[in-house]
Amino acid sequence: MKREIIYFDTPPIITNVCSAAGKKENEGPLSGGFDIVDESDSFGQDTFEKSESEMQRLALKGVLDKAKLTDSDIDVLFAGDLTNQCTSSNYGLLKFNIPFFGLYGACSTAAEGLILSAITVGRGIYDKAAAVTSSHNCSAERQFRYPLEYGGQHTPTSQWTVTGASAVIVSNEGKGPIINDVLPGKTVDHGITDINNMGAAMAPAAIDTLSRYFDQSGTRPSDYDLIATGDLGFEGHRIVKELLPEKGYEMGKNYTDCGLLIYDRQKQDMHAGGSGCGCSAIVFASHIYPKLCRGELKNVLFLGTGALMSPTSVQQGLSIPGIAHLVHIKGGM
Amino acid sequence: MKREIIYFDTPPIITNVCSAAGKKENEGPLSGGFDIVDESDSFGQDTFEKSESEMQRLALKGVLDKAKLTDSDIDVLFAGDLTNQCTSSNYGLLKFNIPFFGLYGACSTAAEGLILSAITVGRGIYDKAAAVTSSHNCSAERQFRYPLEYGGQHTPTSQWTVTGASAVIVSNEGKGPIINDVLPGKTVDHGITDINNMGAAMAPAAIDTLSRYFDQSGTRPSDYDLIATGDLGFEGHRIVKELLPEKGYEMGKNYTDCGLLIYDRQKQDMHAGGSGCGCSAIVFASHIYPKLCRGELKNVLFLGTGALMSPTSVQQGLSIPGIAHLVHIKGGM
Repeated sequence: MKREIIYFDTPPIITNVCSAAGKKENEGPLSGGFDIVDESDSFGQDTFEKSESEMQRLALKGVLDKAKLTDSDIDVLFAGDLTNQCTSSNYGLLKFNIPFFGLYGACSTAAEGLILSAITVGRGIYDKAAAVTSSHNCSAERQFRYPLEYGGQHTPTSQWTVTGASAVIVSNEGKGPIINDVLPGKTVDHGITDINNMGAAMAPAAIDTLSRYFDQSGTRPSDYDLIATGDLGFEGHRIVKELLPEKGYEMGKNYTDCGLLIYDRQKQDMHAGGSGCGCSAIVFASHIYPKLCRGELKNVLFLGTGALMSPTSVQQGLSIPGIAHLVHIKGGM
Repeated sequence: MKREIIYFDTPPIITNVCSAAGKKENEGPLSGGFDIVDESDSFGQDTFEKSESEMQRLALKGVLDKAKLTDSDIDVLFAGDLTNQCTSSNYGLLKFNIPFFGLYGACSTAAEGLILSAITVGRGIYDKAAAVTSSHNCSAERQFRYPLEYGGQHTPTSQWTVTGASAVIVSNEGKGPIINDVLPGKTVDHGITDINNMGAAMAPAAIDTLSRYFDQSGTRPSDYDLIATGDLGFEGHRIVKELLPEKGYEMGKNYTDCGLLIYDRQKQDMHAGGSGCGCSAIVFASHIYPKLCRGELKNVLFLGTGALMSPTSVQQGLSIPGIAHLVHIKGGM
């Protein structure tokens, strides 16, 4: 069996995080946990795309302020988002004078950025990296589905794109939860063609990464306080619980999904839950990370899951590939 | 002065490359240098986007065959392209059972992938990485400009998106040119808003990276056999030559640009030259790499330059940021 998990002699530390979120997110169960909230969702900008860029800027500025650092203290940025050509990252982080790697991992981007930050810091290439991610409901709706003015209805399996951004500092010194090891994802396609069922499209990738992880690490789901995929939503979460036993692993009550945590599905009428790069990004920053810091969580698997289609590929009849990147984090250190 | 260049105790080796190209590319000065050519530009597929994906698949399959390797010998893929949501990479590389990091660096992607391959292999995280990149003239034209059927005219400063893909294996053992060091780019925006003048938009990023590199490495342009940016084209190349002296460095006859090498601008009526992720990718694979192997080139700076806008950001009146990633390669070893 090939060992694909990457371990560190000196595990990198997640020293600081910062999250920015919109109105609906702040009306949900995680209300009060976000660092920056704009009830108008506009963040002072006049287009949805500029609002999303501004969220990234605010999140990175916020995390630098919290850490009492400036641009020159951060060696590298790993950033991405859902907009065509990843402009939310390109424009949002333009004013920071820091080497920049643009990523595209769809909704797995928060974890993809964390992995690249962890391996470059954990293996001595950089001292401090920052991973930045965002999505905005309005920029995503008009790009992937319909113009907002059209009032298109959502199907029961569809998910609601989160308006949110996070910035995370990964460092070789300081205090905070540590990234113990990581497992990068592989692209997986099980033939799902329904663009309104991203959870089903991404679940096979989560199953692939989780089973590879348990196989190679010699651990089981019950060894962890929390296993959080994101953002499979209600559909994908159910599929993982149902099908992972075929690989020999039973998921228990410690298994959740960021798409289930971000909204109150019933009260907020959120269909199958939350989605978008910002979903796992701000659930991690506002909910999982603080619990790791306080020691309420000590051993967590955080998986970013992404659906790698485009409107064009779906119109051309192609099925939807998924990917899931895994980060193993230890808290209360 | 902060040191941003990354060096290696044991420099990684570029053991194999493979390129795929279309009709116009094979009619240019590099004709005969490509591993795979399809004069129909379709590569057996029925949409432009699928053709581009297929080029990536063929390039990666081709480089594995050349190296007598299979999927399981490659530890990681770094891949990206220009299509919305990077579907050329996501679908093209789907059948390879290899951990996957999706990148978005616009036309800097070939160099971005080489840098991430080099640092992960050069610092012992992986044994073998592959960097894969593509662009296709027809998928890019209809996404960024006009439907092909519309017959939109190009302005004199516009560049022609290359139909081409390359795959490059970076390894910790074997024979070939070595990656001596790398310098990741920063996003730079000098206010260019003309979407038909990408060269002018990207030139400031190339100037920023080149001047940082010479400052930090203590070298001068004349120390290298070849400095190849790509793809600034005629306009951007001229701007770099004109403005780099303000930073204290004079570019001589050893300075070229991949966008100038790929086509015969006069005979092929290619306006300001070639562009697209595939441009620097296949110029490197078919032209620069073989000369490094034969020892005709011994000391090369290869810079991928990318314009980080989208059609939406330009329609919203934003100027065009650029980025330039630098790879320092030594041949004839």
